[in-house]
Amino acid sequence: MNYKGKNVPEVVIKRLPRYYRYLGDYLKSGVTRISSAKLSEKMGVTASQIRQDFNYFGGFGQQGYGYNVEYLYNEIAELLGLKDGYRAVIIGAGHLGLALANHASFEKRGFSITALFDSDEEKVGKTVNSKPILHIEGIEDYIKQNGISIAILAIPKSEVGALAEKLVEYGVKGLWNFSSAEIKLSKPVAVENVHMSDSLMTLSYKIKQGETNKEN
Amino acid sequence: MNYKGKNVPEVVIKRLPRYYRYLGDYLKSGVTRISSAKLSEKMGVTASQIRQDFNYFGGFGQQGYGYNVEYLYNEIAELLGLKDGYRAVIIGAGHLGLALANHASFEKRGFSITALFDSDEEKVGKTVNSKPILHIEGIEDYIKQNGISIAILAIPKSEVGALAEKLVEYGVKGLWNFSSAEIKLSKPVAVENVHMSDSLMTLSYKIKQGETNKEN
Repeated sequence: MNYKGKNVPEVVIKRLPRYYRYLGDYLKSGVTRISSAKLSEKMGVTASQIRQDFNYFGGFGQQGYGYNVEYLYNEIAELLGLKDGYRAVIIGAGHLGLALANHASFEKRGFSITALFDSDEEKVGKTVNSKPILHIEGIEDYIKQNGISIAILAIPKSEVGALAEKLVEYGVKGLWNFSSAEIKLSKPVAVENVHMSDSLMTLSYKIKQGETNKEN
Repeated sequence: MNYKGKNVPEVVIKRLPRYYRYLGDYLKSGVTRISSAKLSEKMGVTASQIRQDFNYFGGFGQQGYGYNVEYLYNEIAELLGLKDGYRAVIIGAGHLGLALANHASFEKRGFSITALFDSDEEKVGKTVNSKPILHIEGIEDYIKQNGISIAILAIPKSEVGALAEKLVEYGVKGLWNFSSAEIKLSKPVAVENVHMSDSLMTLSYKIKQGETNKEN
C-alpha cells in the first residue's frame, strides 16, 4: 500500500492500529519513552521489524533513546487519518448494524457514526445509541449534506453490489464491508473487508496446534 | 506460533484462512492446479512469499507444476483444525451475539454453534437461527456434556474476567474474544481477540493515503 510513493507492505499497515492501541495504553499509564525492544515484546515482532516498519514513515525519531510515546502515538494517529474525524453511516439496521452502532471504541478513535439506514419501515424512525435510523431512500442527500466519508455495509451480500457503486457516486470514500460480497467498482474507493470467519479459523488453528495465551 | 516445533510467524498463520478461502473459490470454479504466481496475484503477496509460507508446513507439493488445488485446500483445512468440527457456544445474546448466531459462514467452515447463553430471563428460552438461548447458570454442564471447544465472548469487558477462567476450567479450549478485555489466564488456552476498530483504522489509513480497490 502506498505511502508518499513508497510501497508499504500490507502487513505493516495492519500493524499500525496495534501500535496505536499499545501506545495509547502506555500513554495512559504515564510512560513517556519506549524502546523498540520493549514494544517488541508487547507486539510479538522483533525490534528490528519495528524499526523497519517505522522507517517506511520516516523512522519516528532516535532509536537509541527509545521512542517518545506521545509523539509516536500522534504521528501514527495522523498516518491512520484518525485526526480527520471521518464521519460514517451504517447501512443495515439488523443485529450487526445495531451491534456496530453500540460499539463504543469507534468514537474513541475519532470516528463519528451519525446515522443508520434501512428500508424496513418498522425500524425507520427509531434511534440506537442516540443515532437515528433513517430510510435508505434519503441516503444520497444525507451523504452529500453531512460530509460522510465511510459507509459501513452491514447488509446481506445480495444487496451490496448496486448500492456500493451508488454510495461512491454520492461521495463516500471508504467502504467497510461486513458482507462476503467482493466489491469491484469502476471508481477508486478504499475498501476494507471484514472476514469474521478468518478470525475464527485463526483461533481454530491455535487450538489445533496447541498455541496458547498469546496477545494479538 | 508453533507448528511441529517450528516457530511460524503470526503473519503466516493469519494468511492461512485467506489461502483457504481463495482455494475454495478456485475449487468451486473447477480449477485443479494453481501456480504460486497466480495465487500471488490474488493474495497480493509475492510468489516467493507464498512458497516460504508453505515451506513451514512441508511445502505442499511440486511448485514447477503448480499446486494441486484440492490437495492444498484439504491440507490447509487440516492445519486450521477445520476437519475437527469444533463446537462453539456464544456467551451473550445481545445484538452482537445474535449477529454471530445468524452468521452463515461459520458452519460452512466446519464449526457448529450449538447454543447461546445469557442471564436475561427475557431472552432465555427463545431461539435464534435454530439455536436455543439458555441460562448462563447451566453453562458448566452444557460445556461438559456437549464437548464444547470454543466460547465466543459477546459480552461487555467487565463481565469477561471471572467467566473466562471458569469456561476454561469447564473444558473450553479456545476463547474468541469480542470484548476489549485482555484475557490473562493461569491455564493454557487459545485466545483470539477481535479488535473491530483495528479494521476501521486500516480503512481510514487507506482513505487518508489514497489506497484504493485492493482485495483483502
